[in-house]
Amino acid sequence: MQINGVDIKDTYAEAFGIKVSRLLVTAATKKLAKIAATEATGYATSVIGCPAEAGIDGYVPPTETPDGRPGYNIMICNSSKKQLDHELLERVGMGILTAATTAVFNALEDEDEKLKIGFKLKFFGDGYEKELEIDNRTIYSIPIMSGDFLVESELGIKDGVAGGNFFILANSQMEALIAAEAAVDAIHAVPGTITPFPGGVVASGSKVGCNNYNFLNASTNEKMCVTLKEEVVETEIRDDVHGIYEIVIDGVNEEQIRKAMSEGIKAACTISGVREISAGNYGGSLGAYKINLRDLF
Amino acid sequence: MQINGVDIKDTYAEAFGIKVSRLLVTAATKKLAKIAATEATGYATSVIGCPAEAGIDGYVPPTETPDGRPGYNIMICNSSKKQLDHELLERVGMGILTAATTAVFNALEDEDEKLKIGFKLKFFGDGYEKELEIDNRTIYSIPIMSGDFLVESELGIKDGVAGGNFFILANSQMEALIAAEAAVDAIHAVPGTITPFPGGVVASGSKVGCNNYNFLNASTNEKMCVTLKEEVVETEIRDDVHGIYEIVIDGVNEEQIRKAMSEGIKAACTISGVREISAGNYGGSLGAYKINLRDLF
Amino acid sequence: MQINGVDIKDTYAEAFGIKVSRLLVTAATKKLAKIAATEATGYATSVIGCPAEAGIDGYVPPTETPDGRPGYNIMICNSSKKQLDHELLERVGMGILTAATTAVFNALEDEDEKLKIGFKLKFFGDGYEKELEIDNRTIYSIPIMSGDFLVESELGIKDGVAGGNFFILANSQMEALIAAEAAVDAIHAVPGTITPFPGGVVASGSKVGCNNYNFLNASTNEKMCVTLKEEVVETEIRDDVHGIYEIVIDGVNEEQIRKAMSEGIKAACTISGVREISAGNYGGSLGAYKINLRDLF
Amino acid sequence: MQINGVDIKDTYAEAFGIKVSRLLVTAATKKLAKIAATEATGYATSVIGCPAEAGIDGYVPPTETPDGRPGYNIMICNSSKKQLDHELLERVGMGILTAATTAVFNALEDEDEKLKIGFKLKFFGDGYEKELEIDNRTIYSIPIMSGDFLVESELGIKDGVAGGNFFILANSQMEALIAAEAAVDAIHAVPGTITPFPGGVVASGSKVGCNNYNFLNASTNEKMCVTLKEEVVETEIRDDVHGIYEIVIDGVNEEQIRKAMSEGIKAACTISGVREISAGNYGGSLGAYKINLRDLF
Repeated sequence: MQINGVDIKDTYAEAFGIKVSRLLVTAATKKLAKIAATEATGYATSVIGCPAEAGIDGYVPPTETPDGRPGYNIMICNSSKKQLDHELLERVGMGILTAATTAVFNALEDEDEKLKIGFKLKFFGDGYEKELEIDNRTIYSIPIMSGDFLVESELGIKDGVAGGNFFILANSQMEALIAAEAAVDAIHAVPGTITPFPGGVVASGSKVGCNNYNFLNASTNEKMCVTLKEEVVETEIRDDVHGIYEIVIDGVNEEQIRKAMSEGIKAACTISGVREISAGNYGGSLGAYKINLRDLF
Repeated sequence: MQINGVDIKDTYAEAFGIKVSRLLVTAATKKLAKIAATEATGYATSVIGCPAEAGIDGYVPPTETPDGRPGYNIMICNSSKKQLDHELLERVGMGILTAATTAVFNALEDEDEKLKIGFKLKFFGDGYEKELEIDNRTIYSIPIMSGDFLVESELGIKDGVAGGNFFILANSQMEALIAAEAAVDAIHAVPGTITPFPGGVVASGSKVGCNNYNFLNASTNEKMCVTLKEEVVETEIRDDVHGIYEIVIDGVNEEQIRKAMSEGIKAACTISGVREISAGNYGGSLGAYKINLRDLF
Repeated sequence: MQINGVDIKDTYAEAFGIKVSRLLVTAATKKLAKIAATEATGYATSVIGCPAEAGIDGYVPPTETPDGRPGYNIMICNSSKKQLDHELLERVGMGILTAATTAVFNALEDEDEKLKIGFKLKFFGDGYEKELEIDNRTIYSIPIMSGDFLVESELGIKDGVAGGNFFILANSQMEALIAAEAAVDAIHAVPGTITPFPGGVVASGSKVGCNNYNFLNASTNEKMCVTLKEEVVETEIRDDVHGIYEIVIDGVNEEQIRKAMSEGIKAACTISGVREISAGNYGGSLGAYKINLRDLF
Repeated sequence: MQINGVDIKDTYAEAFGIKVSRLLVTAATKKLAKIAATEATGYATSVIGCPAEAGIDGYVPPTETPDGRPGYNIMICNSSKKQLDHELLERVGMGILTAATTAVFNALEDEDEKLKIGFKLKFFGDGYEKELEIDNRTIYSIPIMSGDFLVESELGIKDGVAGGNFFILANSQMEALIAAEAAVDAIHAVPGTITPFPGGVVASGSKVGCNNYNFLNASTNEKMCVTLKEEVVETEIRDDVHGIYEIVIDGVNEEQIRKAMSEGIKAACTISGVREISAGNYGGSLGAYKINLRDLF
């Protein structure tokens, strides 16, 4: 199977269950909303080493938000509900409440349950906080030095999907990189999904475990390392490939992950030099979701 | 004392000791370096709730970096050396190693000691890593899917200063906000300092402790909350002030903190509507550094 | 009439007819498309002194473009058809053809007529150009050093509307400025409209003619200048206003101008310190369109 | 000769004399200064079809500007003094005076003569303008709706150099493109130079004249078009090159052009896949400056 001359490998992405939240951060201007959304979703590429996986889902114009101000939907994810509760509290409390002119609303539609994030944050108001109703939501207004911070009392979480992924294999590193950027641009148009790695792109896909150092749970995927092609006999990189980037996607459900993968792959295939699209899996033993690349089209 | 018609209050900023690191992140282009620097310094406004305090110190053009590529100096800070070691490992490993085309070099000049961050990260290479010497530094080259990630073996840390600060009090919230942005622009020109809050600006300065909820260590500073001015009898906000933002600065030493405060305050005072510059302190009992505002000029 | 406590003055914006074009600029990535769109729409705030009025209408994700790549709709306008033909040729030829990886498609839906822009640009190919059909459009492929530039043979133009406008009057300059930025953010969500001034905001609204220098056709609108309030007896600025910015909108038709004005005004009224929304008119003698502010809501 | 394994061709860039101006645009914040600088330098890639060549030279922090606010040095150029006078008047008047919170200062050090740009713009004040002295400069303060616009009475111009250039030839289009971006990043560190094309990069280098259409003065440089390699017998593209971008530099003098070329070429050579650096010339008959690539190092 080919798209625009690029081989779509007969393989699958192995994805995992994760708890996801989705919040709308609004502010006085688009720029101010972006600043808060960026701070709150930083240091969150993978739960392998970060305290959460997080990213910006998409921009919401003022014409479509509860308070008529521009905003960004962001997603914050963790396998553990308790950990997610902690991360939501701290990322909203330290990254958004502290940011100029912001407000936070729930943006998850079919949540499994709700966490009392706004309810807990209100105590920061030291008794001066107030309960409001906006857009049929219970909102706390917390007085801060610069004005009032508004936050919805409860934020929904649900069982979502992490680790949707595909590999972009190109003739050179820079072709793979531009293709990865194009893929991320396309995935941004799919609501309910994020690409949590820096700029949406993974430079360093890993394998489970480590052959030489038994104290490590994850290590470089040497069979896919372009600079080890000559050295590693079992390399899985074809002759005409010298650059590889991976895209990892978290989403509210499998359907949106599939849509994001499909749009991302099509976008990557518009870039000259891309030779093959593949995907990461671990024998199918770990993740609950197997997404065949060729079924996406 | 006045600057450009703005009252400089006769008070001091109370700052604290913190362990600081300073790294240079380079990449193929300025944009790619910014992406990595942003991810690695996210979720790091204050150690009150974040696992670190971190931010971008400044841009370094390719003409001045060890590898002739554009880069950003970033600072990552924590009171505990052990915690800082952990944060450096994870923020470099998860936020920079994973980012496209990056390399990491030590950028602290007079370190107290060195942490083996690159040395520990090299194990990700699963035996394929190599030791190089660049610019008289010991560097590890770790093969990753997209190419090779370079990281200096040891990164310096030293006793620096956190919590340098000043308040911008203006006639309105938006005047205080633009003045805060101007202050942050100016502070960016002072090397060895960061403003770790979102966009460099603090919307929600806090007090130690909480009057109404004894389970909280920090809560809103009601005496400085503009929307509580009428309600709180002990308000410290003068009549003509309706907007307040705070700037918090971490730095490699007190001298750079002082320079940053001085430049930041002068810049804030270029904005119309600013009435007073004040600062946050806690009676002088907690922090080792007392920086009198009026001594800065 | 008030919106969110802000007075909507009983006045009208006087708008004028202008010839408009609307093109889609696509590129390999969103960033590259933005670079080309920005260059092609620069130096184009007002035909009073610029060779065109131009701006970015909105972003179009790769999922919705003819070539599956990210793009921006831009609008280029001029009162004279001949001049517009010239500007389209030069702005596409010098600002987009010269930009990396771009393509240009017509994005005007109900054009009055078509100009042979792509047809004329193809001669740059010196005989090596080719005619293609993409998405039922006649496209020329012009070989350039970096690859092939694609441009639609004909670009539509139509009678549109220029000079839709409103004034934001606030207690201070910075409140008016943030409100103007919020208004521009909202107007970006209205397709078929641009705000051609720098950042979408006009700092220097003018009056027709000049009282003191008869060689000038336009000069400062002293009755609305905040720093002349005390000096100019006929000032039209109320006591509580010390900052004024104007928003100017060009659009494909009156309906979209009205929508943009409505959304922009509502957004401006979310910002604290805004006191009044007014509009610019010249006695109704010059422009064909009179848009009453109070009829918008 | 090779740099980092890249062949530096034994050829020269042919550059031309041009009149250059250099202005400092300051504003309340860095972001606002960037908006004005971008508008004023748009639609200005090449005087072949644009009314000027213009670009942003570099950022100037508030610590180093006459008014203590952040700013950008920009350059505006034209072969004709009369035309440059016109462009300065319109680009400052329509692109900077109209932008929020801006001021304009001369930033050319050893000018040949001075043009009365501020002096002419002051008439917009309709008699309310005032003359000030700031930093030993004669400045006009012109009241506009949002406040006062400050502009230096006279702006210097001098005989500078246009058309400094080099070609980046890489194995693929995307490698050449990233290398071009890296080159532009490096050139930004050389004061007194601009790269006037979109994003600093030229996608469509041209030849003088046209073989097939005698009504054209410039047309595609078919011998350097990668997609015509097989078709054009006289192609000058070596076998291993499939992507070419050009960098064009204008500067205040030949020395800065040479520095910019040198830094830009070194930066381009850090990117994998780059094979050769060449340059554009026209037999040496047209331009006064011949800059041998190999003499730069």
